[in-house]
Amino acid sequence: MMGNSENEDPLEDLIINYNELNSSVIEELDEEPSALEFMRFVARNTPFVVRSGAANWQATRTWTVNYLRELLRDESVNVAVTPAGNADAPTPYTSPDDGTTTLVFAKPHEEDQPFMTFLSYLISQEHRQQSPQTPSQATTSITTTATGEIRYAQTQNDNLRHEYLPLFAHVPATIPWARIALARDPDAINLWIGNSRSVTALHKDNYENIYVQIAGQKHFVLLPPVCHAAVNETRLRPAVYRRRRMEVSGGGEGGGEEEGLELVLEEGEGEEVPFAIWDPDRPGENATRYSALVQPMLVTLDPGDMLYLPCMWYHKVSQSCSPEGVCIAVNYRYDMDFTGPLYPLSTFVRSISSKALQRAE
Amino acid sequence: MMGNSENEDPLEDLIINYNELNSSVIEELDEEPSALEFMRFVARNTPFVVRSGAANWQATRTWTVNYLRELLRDESVNVAVTPAGNADAPTPYTSPDDGTTTLVFAKPHEEDQPFMTFLSYLISQEHRQQSPQTPSQATTSITTTATGEIRYAQTQNDNLRHEYLPLFAHVPATIPWARIALARDPDAINLWIGNSRSVTALHKDNYENIYVQIAGQKHFVLLPPVCHAAVNETRLRPAVYRRRRMEVSGGGEGGGEEEGLELVLEEGEGEEVPFAIWDPDRPGENATRYSALVQPMLVTLDPGDMLYLPCMWYHKVSQSCSPEGVCIAVNYRYDMDFTGPLYPLSTFVRSISSKALQRAE
Repeated sequence: MMGNSENEDPLEDLIINYNELNSSVIEELDEEPSALEFMRFVARNTPFVVRSGAANWQATRTWTVNYLRELLRDESVNVAVTPAGNADAPTPYTSPDDGTTTLVFAKPHEEDQPFMTFLSYLISQEHRQQSPQTPSQATTSITTTATGEIRYAQTQNDNLRHEYLPLFAHVPATIPWARIALARDPDAINLWIGNSRSVTALHKDNYENIYVQIAGQKHFVLLPPVCHAAVNETRLRPAVYRRRRMEVSGGGEGGGEEEGLELVLEEGEGEEVPFAIWDPDRPGENATRYSALVQPMLVTLDPGDMLYLPCMWYHKVSQSCSPEGVCIAVNYRYDMDFTGPLYPLSTFVRSISSKALQRAE
Repeated sequence: MMGNSENEDPLEDLIINYNELNSSVIEELDEEPSALEFMRFVARNTPFVVRSGAANWQATRTWTVNYLRELLRDESVNVAVTPAGNADAPTPYTSPDDGTTTLVFAKPHEEDQPFMTFLSYLISQEHRQQSPQTPSQATTSITTTATGEIRYAQTQNDNLRHEYLPLFAHVPATIPWARIALARDPDAINLWIGNSRSVTALHKDNYENIYVQIAGQKHFVLLPPVCHAAVNETRLRPAVYRRRRMEVSGGGEGGGEEEGLELVLEEGEGEEVPFAIWDPDRPGENATRYSALVQPMLVTLDPGDMLYLPCMWYHKVSQSCSPEGVCIAVNYRYDMDFTGPLYPLSTFVRSISSKALQRAE
């Protein structure tokens, strides 16, 4: 029968069988699906992209940098600040006590900034294009404003209906085919504003997600839920960046004092964060014996494109900027349905993966 | 987080988590669903019943015994014959060589009979009601016409569009909401005619299935696909019943010769049939350590009721007769969608279950 290879290792078979039955090339639609067509994708837990599905949204047509400045002139917004675009990402941490380096879960420093300041910073950094340091190469917990901290408006707390309310009228209040199919309104509608220096590390969410690109591009690397054994989920100690003035021995000038970001472990043990530490863009590092089996699905969203990202799919997201120097996207997040077999089966795969990888250690 | 118990055994957790998130009481609809509503159930791989959904079908309204006799007067039909209603069921087999008894997979004797003969046999057997022998208590491989062989028209080869073509016009050629949702026509439409002596043993199919009760009742015991470890799937040697005249030492008269059914092993090794040997109606027998965790979903179909049986659900089906002494049902079988995670995950659960139960032996 189809998809039944006869390997010794069920976790290996699971990924191989999945790959045999499913394409790693995303399905592309030319127009928005009906609610029923969408529900078929939900049933299959399979992504698709609607090319130009949101091309006529007011947001897509009007959100130039100047227009945003005008609309949000007096607003203050929450900004995630990291040295290397690594908000909520596995990050090497060197202990000040014993000099050992371990991976921790690095949360950004968060602060409110005037929207005008934030946007200008993003754009000027993007246009400088000075010796771009890709976020995943960041191995230091400290950077300076000289090399440029990375800022990203990425609160996922329904910010488009709160913090960015003046913009909300420019997007549909709901995606009709999703609302009708899922029989619920979005749990959150979020706006994301950043530049090419920010990357969202591989992770998964218990949400049905629809991403809409407004300006610039988002580059998704997608893995299905069955790939749990490949992502090397590891319990990481949480740490958070904080601003600090510090001595630096940098450049050719023998040091000085600059503002930087220091990664600080959070207090308390036992609050570890289980997180994927394998990066499909650096497949040789932090791999498990299952990682090489994975066939990631790659999709780039251009302005006006819509992506359905099914619940529990792993996704890593990087960004390119519009000619104006920004990357802007909106996503509609719907609570997933925890009934049926998929959620318990996903927990099961996670549990078996964890046992198998522990045994191998 | 919901559904995450912290047990040691992932297979146990899987069933427990599933039970926590899903009701074991079937959802009942008062009218047929829309294609979209149906697709939501498909997405959740969750059964439902539409009470009286087919009450106005011509079949439901007109298929009396006399009417069927009239329509099929000259037809000959395929009949499955067994000693105890155990077609395609795990059955004890006693070797004539060494007297040892093992479970085998018993296939019925199949033969063509005039429809009139077949129907009269069913009805008169049902009305005799003599010391009913429940099929699962059958432990002999031989019976005689004196106790009554069991006959069941149960070919699942699209028989309503072939063998029983004169009846096909009395049911819809397709179920509109299923055809639209699944975007396909039924792979097979089958008619089932039997009496209360036949039972279909617990098994699962790779089909989306819609059962429609026409006369009498069907009693379903349903288990979700995550319960694989509970059903004690075992590789059984296939055997088939065949008619034979044989000596009997029966009754008070010192024996004689009667026609009986003899269970004969099929030739050739290596053709074993993996089959569930746990019976949810006799939970103490052939159980695994997971069987007691299962919460079977029970549903009885009355005439006109429709059942959606999602792909890969285990089902055991027994029957009650109409006052006329027959049980008649139709099912529409649609190919399942093998894409997405569910099929590979089901294979995975099967594989892990098999390893876990082997280890325990």
